[in-house]
Amino acid sequence: MYVVILAGGSGTRFWPLSRRKTPKQLISVFSGKSMLQRTLERVLPLRPKRVIVVTNTLQAEETARQLKEYHRRVRIDIIEEPVGRNTAPAIGLAASIIARYDPDGIMVTLPADHYIAGEEEFLATVMRGREAALNGYLVTMGIEPTRPETGYGYIEADTQLRGSAGPFPVKRFVEKPPLEKAFAYLDSGNFFWNSGIFIWRVDVILDNILALMPDLAAALAGLTFSGDIWELEDFNLQIESIYNEIKGESIDYGVMEKANNVVVIPAKFGWSDVGSWSAIPEVIEADASGNVVIKAKHSLSIDSEGCLVCGGNKLVALVGMKETIVVDTDDALLVCAKDRAQDVKRVVEELEKKGLGEYL
Amino acid sequence: MYVVILAGGSGTRFWPLSRRKTPKQLISVFSGKSMLQRTLERVLPLRPKRVIVVTNTLQAEETARQLKEYHRRVRIDIIEEPVGRNTAPAIGLAASIIARYDPDGIMVTLPADHYIAGEEEFLATVMRGREAALNGYLVTMGIEPTRPETGYGYIEADTQLRGSAGPFPVKRFVEKPPLEKAFAYLDSGNFFWNSGIFIWRVDVILDNILALMPDLAAALAGLTFSGDIWELEDFNLQIESIYNEIKGESIDYGVMEKANNVVVIPAKFGWSDVGSWSAIPEVIEADASGNVVIKAKHSLSIDSEGCLVCGGNKLVALVGMKETIVVDTDDALLVCAKDRAQDVKRVVEELEKKGLGEYL
Repeated sequence: MYVVILAGGSGTRFWPLSRRKTPKQLISVFSGKSMLQRTLERVLPLRPKRVIVVTNTLQAEETARQLKEYHRRVRIDIIEEPVGRNTAPAIGLAASIIARYDPDGIMVTLPADHYIAGEEEFLATVMRGREAALNGYLVTMGIEPTRPETGYGYIEADTQLRGSAGPFPVKRFVEKPPLEKAFAYLDSGNFFWNSGIFIWRVDVILDNILALMPDLAAALAGLTFSGDIWELEDFNLQIESIYNEIKGESIDYGVMEKANNVVVIPAKFGWSDVGSWSAIPEVIEADASGNVVIKAKHSLSIDSEGCLVCGGNKLVALVGMKETIVVDTDDALLVCAKDRAQDVKRVVEELEKKGLGEYL
Repeated sequence: MYVVILAGGSGTRFWPLSRRKTPKQLISVFSGKSMLQRTLERVLPLRPKRVIVVTNTLQAEETARQLKEYHRRVRIDIIEEPVGRNTAPAIGLAASIIARYDPDGIMVTLPADHYIAGEEEFLATVMRGREAALNGYLVTMGIEPTRPETGYGYIEADTQLRGSAGPFPVKRFVEKPPLEKAFAYLDSGNFFWNSGIFIWRVDVILDNILALMPDLAAALAGLTFSGDIWELEDFNLQIESIYNEIKGESIDYGVMEKANNVVVIPAKFGWSDVGSWSAIPEVIEADASGNVVIKAKHSLSIDSEGCLVCGGNKLVALVGMKETIVVDTDDALLVCAKDRAQDVKRVVEELEKKGLGEYL
C-alpha cells in the first residue's frame, strides 16, 4: 500500500495563522502536531511501503522539516509542484511514480489538511476500500452527513444492492447544495459528503486518466526514470516541464465524475475539511461560555457566546461579543464575524493589492 | 490664578491600554501627548502662578515623569493621595495649600482626563468664570449639549435674567437622565452638561467646605505648614493622616448641590469626559469606512462599520464587524461590543478575582 498526501494548499482562509509558507496543513490548530503530521501519523498503522507528499516549492522547506522525524518509521518522498494545478496532475504524477515500482500497487490519497476523529474507524474504512480497489474499482470515501451542510460537495450512491457497509456504486457527484437540498440529502440516507479521500490501484487510475484525461496522460508519459528517481535533481525539472504543459483540473471532475467503475465507501468517523475559521467549533469543543479558545495564554469572556479565540502569548478578553472570530498573531490580528469567515481570503487579496506582502 | 488638576483616576474603563500605573490621563490616546499633558498645556496661556496636580501613590512616578518637561514653564507641585477619596478632599487640600500663599487666590480645577476641542474658547470661558469667581461665586462650567446624552450629569440653570453668555444661577444638579429626559434637556436650552471644571476663590470654597462639609474642614484644619511645605517629607504623612480620617465625597454632592452661590458658565467648546472606549468616536473622526483607527500600524476593514481599533505595531483586519471595539496591547487584547464598553471594568474586576494582577 502506498499513501499519497496532497499538501499543496494555500490556506488563505486561515489567515493570519496560516501564511503562504505555512498554510493550514503546516500549522497546528489543534495540538502540538500540524495537520500534515496528524495526517501522516494516521496512516502509519497501515504500514505503507512509501508515502509521497505532494507540496509546492514555497512550502517544501517547512514540509520537509515537519516530516523529518518520521523518516525512521516510513519512507517519505516529497514532490515539489512548481505551480498548483489542482489534484489531478498531482495524483497522476504520484500514480506514475508508484507504478514504476509496483504497477498494481494500492494507492491511498489523502488531503493533508482535513480533520478526522476516530482513528480505528478510519483505518477500518481504508481497509474496506482497499478490498474494492483490489477488485479494480475507483474508491472514494463518503462521510455520512450529520447536518445539512451547504459547504461540502455530496456523492449520491446507489444503496439498493448491498448492505449498509458498502461499497456502493456512485450515481453522481453533486456540487455544494442549497440548504433545502442539503436537508433532503441528509434525510435520504444515500448521500454522502465527498471527503476527497481516494483508494485505487495505480494501474486502474492511470488507465482512467488515459481514457478521460488524455492530455494529462500524454504529459505524464514523457516522464523518464533513471535509477532511483527520487534522488535525481532533474526530476524537479521534469515536473516543471510537465506542469507547464498541462492545465489544472480536479481528479473529481477529470476522472471520478466520468468513470464507470467508481464506488463509495461509507465512513462513520468524525470528519471536517476545516475549510475556514468558522469550521473550528465543529472539531474543538466549546467551553462553558460557548466559546472555543485555542492557544490563548489566558482568556476571559463576559456575556460572549459562540466565539472563537486563537491567540498567542497574551490575555484575550471578550465583552458582549457573539459569533465572532478573533485570531491574534505576532504581526497581525483578525476580528471577523463568524458568518463571514469565507471572506478572510479577501483580506489576503487586499494585502496583496496594497503591497503588504510581509503579512501573507 | 492657580490651577488644580485632578489626576487620580483609576481609568479601568480604558483597559487594556490603561493600567493601574498608567490610567487614562497618563496615556496618549489621541496624539503623542498624554491627556494630563494636554490638560496642562491647555492652561499654560493663563499663566498660572502654580499648578497643583493631585494624583496617587501608584501613579505618582509616571505623573512626575510626564510633567518634568513643563517645569521650566510653570511651577508644578504634585500631591500624592494615599487612597482615593473622590474629589472633595483633593480640592479641599489643594485649596488649603493655595490659601496659605494667597488667601483669596483664584483656583481653576480641571479633571486631567477630559477631552476639549477649541483652546481659545476654553481660555475665554475660564476668563469669564474668573470674573464671577472674583465676585464670590462658585463657578462651574456647563457644556452646551449637542445630543441627548444619557451618560452625563446635567446642570439646570436659571437663564431668565441674563444674556446667553451667563453666568447663570444654578437651579439644580441632575444625575444621568433617561433618554426621554435627555431629549427634553437638549431642547430646553437651560440644561448643560456638568463638566467637572470649577473656578472659585480659595476663601470662598473653603468657607463653603466649612459650612457644608464640616468633617472635611476639621481634618484640613489640622494641616500644619512649616517653611515651604512642598518640599517637606512629612507633608505626605500629614495627608495620609487626613485621608484616614475623612470619608470620600464628590465636591458636586458635598458642596455644589447645596451651596447657594453657585453659577454656571456656558461653554461652547467641544468636550467629552471620554468615559469609556465608546466615547472615542465622539472625539476622533472616523475613516471612510466609518471606523476609527488609532495607533494601528496597518489596518484593513472589509464590510465593517462603526468600529474602533486601537492597536500597536501590528496589522489589524476587520471582516464583517459592526460597532465593535478592538484594543490590542503587548500583553492583552480586548474585543468588546461598543454598547458594552462600560463593562470593560468588569474585565478588570475578573482579572483581580483570578489573580491575574500582571494585566491590571
